[in-house]
Order: sequence, then C-alpha cells, then structure tokens
Amino acid sequence: MTRVLTGITTSGTPHLGNYVGAVRPAIAASRAPDAESFYFLADLHSLVKVQDAARVQRSTLEIAATWLAAGLDPDKVWFYRQSDIPEISELNWFLTCVAGKGALNRAHAYKASVDRNRAEGEDDDSGITAGLFMYPVLMSADILLFNAHKVPVGRDQVQHIEMARDFGQRFNHLFGRDYFTLPEAVIEENVATLPGLDGRKMSKSYDNTIPLFAPRQEMRKLIASIVTDSRAPGEAKEAEGSHVFQLYQAFASSEETAGMRQAFADGIGWGDAKQQLFERIDAEVAPMRERYESLMARPAEVEAMLRDGARRLRAKYATPFLAELRQAVGLRDLSFQAAAGGEAVDKVTLPSFKQYRDTDKRFYFKLLDGEGELLLQSAGFDSPKEAGQLIGVLKLAESANALETPAINVLVPVEKVLVALGHLRQAEG
Amino acid sequence: MTRVLTGITTSGTPHLGNYVGAVRPAIAASRAPDAESFYFLADLHSLVKVQDAARVQRSTLEIAATWLAAGLDPDKVWFYRQSDIPEISELNWFLTCVAGKGALNRAHAYKASVDRNRAEGEDDDSGITAGLFMYPVLMSADILLFNAHKVPVGRDQVQHIEMARDFGQRFNHLFGRDYFTLPEAVIEENVATLPGLDGRKMSKSYDNTIPLFAPRQEMRKLIASIVTDSRAPGEAKEAEGSHVFQLYQAFASSEETAGMRQAFADGIGWGDAKQQLFERIDAEVAPMRERYESLMARPAEVEAMLRDGARRLRAKYATPFLAELRQAVGLRDLSFQAAAGGEAVDKVTLPSFKQYRDTDKRFYFKLLDGEGELLLQSAGFDSPKEAGQLIGVLKLAESANALETPAINVLVPVEKVLVALGHLRQAEG
Repeated sequence: MTRVLTGITTSGTPHLGNYVGAVRPAIAASRAPDAESFYFLADLHSLVKVQDAARVQRSTLEIAATWLAAGLDPDKVWFYRQSDIPEISELNWFLTCVAGKGALNRAHAYKASVDRNRAEGEDDDSGITAGLFMYPVLMSADILLFNAHKVPVGRDQVQHIEMARDFGQRFNHLFGRDYFTLPEAVIEENVATLPGLDGRKMSKSYDNTIPLFAPRQEMRKLIASIVTDSRAPGEAKEAEGSHVFQLYQAFASSEETAGMRQAFADGIGWGDAKQQLFERIDAEVAPMRERYESLMARPAEVEAMLRDGARRLRAKYATPFLAELRQAVGLRDLSFQAAAGGEAVDKVTLPSFKQYRDTDKRFYFKLLDGEGELLLQSAGFDSPKEAGQLIGVLKLAESANALETPAINVLVPVEKVLVALGHLRQAEG
Repeated sequence: MTRVLTGITTSGTPHLGNYVGAVRPAIAASRAPDAESFYFLADLHSLVKVQDAARVQRSTLEIAATWLAAGLDPDKVWFYRQSDIPEISELNWFLTCVAGKGALNRAHAYKASVDRNRAEGEDDDSGITAGLFMYPVLMSADILLFNAHKVPVGRDQVQHIEMARDFGQRFNHLFGRDYFTLPEAVIEENVATLPGLDGRKMSKSYDNTIPLFAPRQEMRKLIASIVTDSRAPGEAKEAEGSHVFQLYQAFASSEETAGMRQAFADGIGWGDAKQQLFERIDAEVAPMRERYESLMARPAEVEAMLRDGARRLRAKYATPFLAELRQAVGLRDLSFQAAAGGEAVDKVTLPSFKQYRDTDKRFYFKLLDGEGELLLQSAGFDSPKEAGQLIGVLKLAESANALETPAINVLVPVEKVLVALGHLRQAEG
C-alpha cells in the first residue's frame, strides 16, 4: 500500500484554477485502489503568510467544504487538519535539531525573498520571518510523521521533498535505525493552469480569480468580464491562445472542445462564447455547489469530520509513532531507566489487571502493581463484558480526570495509578 | 504575584559548580513568598546538542532528583519537564511565524559558531543545525506560555530574554491584544563560579568537574586530586587565588572561611586543607545525597511527580492559554464561524447537561444539543453527586475512548457528542 500525502494551505478561497489544477486530479487519484491517501488542511503553514485570524478560519472551512463537495470521501482517505495533530509540532522540533541550517539557506522560497530584498537595497533578511525560513522543516514533519511514500508536488516544491529526505535520513542515521521512510516527490508535469480574468495565470496574488463556488449569477458576471480582443460576432477567432477557449477546454469533453473550436472558426461572438463557457462550467460545478453550500451551512459537521479524522489518525499512526521517536531521542519514561553508561533497560515488573467474580455474583476487577500492591478496586458489574470495557478505558487513562468515575475506587495517590497504566501501555506497545 | 521561570537543560550530571552557581540560589529564591516559581527540565533544548538518548534520559532523572534532593518543593513551585507540555511545541511554531529571521542571525550563540567556522576556513553554517539557530524561539515559547515576569539568567542569556520580549511584542501587535506578558531578565551579576580540578572554571566541557553526588570516597579522591602548587606543609600559603580555598569558601560560613584563611597563613599542608574542604562539602552534601540516592532508586516516583506537575500546569495555564492563542491566530473551531468579511462570531445555541431523578428514585442525566436533540443518556446512580462526577469527567472528554463507559449510552454518532462537549468547554472557558 503506497501512502500518498497532500497538504492544502488554508489561506484563501478556492477558485477555478485550484479546482482544475489540484482538487479535481487529487480526488481522482484518491480513488486509486492501491494507495492510502492523506489530505490535510495545512493551517499551521498558513500562519507563515496570513496574520488575519478570520481569514484562516474561513479559508479552513471553505477548503474543507470544497474537497468534500468535490467528492473526497473521508471514510476512504485520511482527511484532517494539521493543527489537530500536536505530534506534528513536536516532530517539527525534533527535525529542527537535525536539519542543517545550510540546507535551509538554500531553499528557493527563502532565497527568492532575499533576492527581492537585495533588488530593493534592503538588508538580506529584512521583513523575513523565521516561519518562511523554517517552513521546509514543518513540511518534513507533515510528511515523515506518516511515513508517506509519495508526495505529489509542482516542480517548485521538489526541493522541499529532497529536504524531507535529507532530514529523515539524518535522523535515521543519528539515532541508528530506519525510523523514517524517505519520501519521493511525484512531479506533476502537466498541471493544468487556467488563465484568470485578465489573462494572466489565475492566482489570488493577481486578484484575477473566479471563485469555484461563486453564486451562479456572480459566476456568470465574472465570466462575462474576461478580457478578450474586440473582434465582432461573425469574425473568425483563433481558439488557441484564447483565454475563453482555454477555460472551456478545461471543463469540456474532447467532442465539446472540437465543437467550440469550430464555433470560434465560424465567428461566434464573445458574448455567446462566454455564455457557453458559463453553462459548461456550471454543469460541472452546480451539483458540487449544492453540496458545498449545504456543508458551509453546517460548519459543526465539517468540524466534527475533521476532528474525527485527526482522532483516528492520531490513534493509528501519529501518537504511537511519536512515542517511538521520543524513545529514540531520549524523551523517555524515567521509570525505565537505562543502566548507567549503557542502553540496556532494566524493566520493572509490570502491573496487571485482575478480573474476578465475587460472592455477590457480580463482576469486579482490581489493578495491582508489580509488587502486588492494590492500586485500585472496581465496583461490581452485571457482566464481565462491562468490567472489561471499563478496563479498556482505564488502560488509555493519561490524566487524573480519567480516573474520576464512581465505578472505581483509587486506593493510592492517583499519580501512582497513572504511572502503572503508563507502564502497561508501554509494555503492550 | 511575580512569576519567575528557570529552565535547566538535561544534558549532563550535576556537579558542584552547578549546585553553587544555580541550584542552591534558585532553591533559596523559590522560597520567596511573593513569587510563583516555574522550574523545568529543558529536555527539548537538550536535543540541540545531545544525540545520545540514554544520556538525555539519565540526565533528566539526575537533574530532577538533584533539585528535589536540594529542597525544591513540588507542592510549592511548578516543577515539570518541558516535553510533557505539548503546548510549548505548538507555541514554538506560532512564535516562529512572527520572529524576524534577522534577529536570530544576531544571536550570540549562533554567531559564535559561525565565527568558529570562519576561523577554521569552513562555510559559515558548516555543521550548524537549525536547532542551534532556532533555540531562542523555543526559549521564548517556554517563557511566554506561562507569562513569566522574570527570568533569572547569566549575562550571556540576556539577549535571549530580549528576543522573547521582541517576539511576544510582535505577536501582541499583530493579533491586536496583549496576549503575552513581556518578560524581564534578572541578571545574576554575582553568580559564584567554582574552579574545577584543573583550576579552570568547573565545567563539563573542560572535563574537570566534581559530581555533586559522587559517592563519598570518590568525592574525597577527586578533591585530593585538585591541582595545587608544591609548597610544603609549614610554608605559608595565600588563600586568595587558591582553588582549594575558593571551593571551601563557597560552602563555608564567614567564620569558617576566616579560620581557613588563618590556617593558610599558618602553613596548613595541602593534604590537610583538602581533607577539611572535603569534610565541609560533605557536611552540606551528605543529607542531600541520601535523598538523591533514594530518589534515583525510585525513578517511577520522580516520573510521577514530573507528570503530575505537568498535568496540573497544563490544566491551569498551558491548555487554556494555548486555546486562546489558537483563537487569536485563527486555528478555531469551525462551528463558530465568523461572518464572511468580519470578526463577529455567530454563536450556536449551546448544548447542555440535564440532571434529573426518575420514577425508580435513581439519579440520571442526559446531554442535549442546542436544538434539544438527545445526544447521550446516563444509567441510574445512587446519588446526584455520583451523576455529577461523571458529568465532570465527560466535560473533559476529547476522544471517543473517554465515552466508552458502561455508565452512559451514546445515542448519536460519537463525533457529534465530542463536538457538543467541545462547544461547552469553549463556552465555559
């Protein structure tokens, strides 16, 4: 099973260019049977550029709703929000400690900012934050935490994947084992780029976008405002090089495209051509727009879906793997102290849960430490299954709150119970 | 109440120099009645320099046991391990995004490494990790997360506190409110530095230390090996400038010191002087050594103490404050979506717990969402207190596991319950 990972920065409103260039192909790829796909909302990355909280929040919802509306199935792929996985921030620091500063100096995005400063006669690092400089390390954490095999990227991002390989390899080397899979960039050579309203590449930075889910009337107006030449209806027009034609082609079948090419040759008026373009786009977008609007109206459900994704993903991958990495670097449970000077770990005798049935015919359990001391005692349950369920819950307890249920009686300082449960977890892996 | 924060990097075994220069004065300061003191084991910082996991682990235990043995009272001060507070790693990224890269270029520790590289004809950043470069940002996170007022530091660390002020101020400015208290450095002008075995400053880097808790016989031997001149017994010796005298003075009262000065003038032999030095140190260290050895033999208790400190500290400060900071930067619960273009938040009607007594005379509760839908139903309890306790536990639930108790019946998809509980928490602050 190949793990494929894609992040989407939550800094704007999805437009037709994002849809054709990124969303649509990624969702098609997510249906590949032999891939385990990871799609995440890179909200921590958005903080590098955006200092407008409402915009980050709005964009997160819009992008989540867009991907879901476009057909991403959160039961089939991992769909989550970066900031819901605290393990990413922790790994970010581990990788910071192995990343060579020299490698970061050579990152294209950083160097481009330095070049701009030099061109303007400013200090090299004027106005540059550590966020821009360190962003390749955070991106490495995103990728390495899930041992992604493949990361689909544009050419400009290939260097970042190489850095992730570099940092992962250094970590593996320093800590003596292949903790991390080294990811490979999958270069998207043929990313469709769409022209924007002014004919330049459709991009938020040019303020020339058509929002993917603009209301119908607004989308019609925006399409009508696409810049064209002034040839009149009846005059033949070249399809190639026409922005209206390019946009049409991105949504149309090859038959439809051929038909439109003919219409251009036959002198279709710009107004008619734009009307057909609008209708073609709307045919694809309208059903998604309905789902999108319905999701935007129920943000709590989107929130719940994202949290659920993160919760399951943490339980399956992030939390156990970070525990292993913490062990690797030496952030360890002190109770399992290595013998001085060596790596050998002197295991303490493990605590254990004992289930039993008492004379009242009810089902009980207790927790004993390695030396047989009684740490906690349960109340009576009607069935062994109920007792077992609570044991399952207790095994996951990491804070005193989790022990505050009337169904158990804690007989020693609560920290002692938490340590015992920690040992059990560690031993059971 | 002034909040005072001190971090100790977990990279070595505490020696007499650490004790006299840092541990002893800090513990005296921790008893000041008008201070809320924070002492933490900076294990994330240790990763900048140490890639030996067993050493990090051992050092963490040794340093924790040292501070406790020396009299730090974890019921009166916050005593915790940095890596037990994941909020620090998260805040580290937020601050990375506001920290100017130019400021980091000017950090002394980084510049010193660059200078060394230049002197050796290497590339500026040769062998320098991003960890060394970014360490002032992590240190800012340590300080700002707890809104520390004062940070006792040596002169060489003053710049880092200025950086923490700078980054905190930028964040406050960018996000429009004084989220962070700006810390002040408390400069320890008279930090006692001790000479090591070879007469240079006692320091791990010179390999000339006397471990604070070396066994008695080993300490005696080490003290006997302190380098002296070759003056014979009976020859007068100058106290000032003598390393043996300096060490003695660091542990002795002024009367004892005057006595030793006289003995030097009277020509005490080096062997006798060293024996007296050993006895004076041992008088102070022996009771602590006993506590230290007892703690080292019970690492699980030290572990539990540290975890308990972190748990309480997170509950009181780190978790709620990070929630506020996440809100500030835009990492928000999507259910409370800001109206497009504005900051106004459209609050959903809150879910609520209803407690009641049923016809069977037992005590029940249920959780309803804002529209009155029943989300979960409890079993019956013997007292309203028991029911209330479980409500308290549920209010803290952040994962499906926490809901897997036989005492409640979840009637809707579990994510819905988790979202409702999240709203309640957010609303109740």
